[in-house]
Amino acid sequence: MSTSTAAPFADNLSLDHTSREEGTTFAPKFDAHGLVIAIAQEAGSGRVLMVAHMNAEALRLTIETGIAHYWSRSRQSLWKKGESSGELQQVVEMRTDCDQDAILISVVQTGRGAACHTGRKSCFYRIVEDAATLRDAGDPRLFDPKDVYKS
Amino acid sequence: MSTSTAAPFADNLSLDHTSREEGTTFAPKFDAHGLVIAIAQEAGSGRVLMVAHMNAEALRLTIETGIAHYWSRSRQSLWKKGESSGELQQVVEMRTDCDQDAILISVVQTGRGAACHTGRKSCFYRIVEDAATLRDAGDPRLFDPKDVYKS
Repeated sequence: MSTSTAAPFADNLSLDHTSREEGTTFAPKFDAHGLVIAIAQEAGSGRVLMVAHMNAEALRLTIETGIAHYWSRSRQSLWKKGESSGELQQVVEMRTDCDQDAILISVVQTGRGAACHTGRKSCFYRIVEDAATLRDAGDPRLFDPKDVYKS
Repeated sequence: MSTSTAAPFADNLSLDHTSREEGTTFAPKFDAHGLVIAIAQEAGSGRVLMVAHMNAEALRLTIETGIAHYWSRSRQSLWKKGESSGELQQVVEMRTDCDQDAILISVVQTGRGAACHTGRKSCFYRIVEDAATLRDAGDPRLFDPKDVYKS
C-alpha cells in the first residue's frame, strides 16, 4: 500500500497546506500502513458507535456503495461491516478533518442496531472511573454474539 | 515507549479476552507507538470535535486533571489542548471501547468553543461529496488562527 496516494484519491502530499485544510479537493492522508481513522456516529442521536480504520479500497467502496467498509487490522482484510452479523451501516454523511487523515461517517445502524461485536449498540459501553477501573454503562445486548458469530 | 503496558495502567495483554472486553479493569491497549486513539465529542450536542492520540502520560494527565491532554505526533510531544489557544477541554466523561484501544471523551469545549486550530468548533467541517470533492459545511470561525497562533 502506498503511504501517500491511493487510486482513486488525490495525493494528500500534492496539496499545499491551505488547499489541504481549506480546499475542496478530497485527498485523504493515509498513514504508513495505508490507513485513515474512521469514526462511525449514529445519525440522529450522535452516539459514537465505533472507531476503526479504512484503507483506500474500503474508503472507495464506502463512498461508492453507501455502506460502511473498513480495513480489519487484526485480520488484515477488507471488512464489510455487518457482512457476518447483518448489522450493515448505511452512510448518511461522510466528513473529513482539517488535515484529512480521519473520516467521520454518520450512519444508520441497520439489523438489530448493534455496531459492536459484543451485541451492544456502541463499542463504547464502559465508563473510565479512574486509571484502574471501568464501569459498565448498562447498555443492553441487542444480540447474543454466540448466536451471530458461529464458527 | 512500551508497546504493551505503561504506568500507571494495567497491562492489556495480562487480561484474557473476556476480562478485556467485559471486565472492570482499565487496561488501555497502546499501539506499537505507545498510543491510543482519542475522540473528543461535545457534551450535550454529541458533535464530534476532533480525533487525536494519547500516550500513557497524556491519558494519565487527562484522568487526573479532568483537562484533555493528547500526544502530538507531528511535534512528538505532550499536548495540553488549548494551552496556546485557551481552548481547553473539560472532560465530562471518558469511555473506552471493547478492546480498549480507543478512548472517547465527552468534553465541554471552553474558550471560544473551537476545538479546531482553524478556529472552527469541530475539525470535521467539510463534507465528502464524492471520491474527489469536499464541500465546506459552513461552520463559522470562532477565532482567527492568525491572532491566536502567533509565531
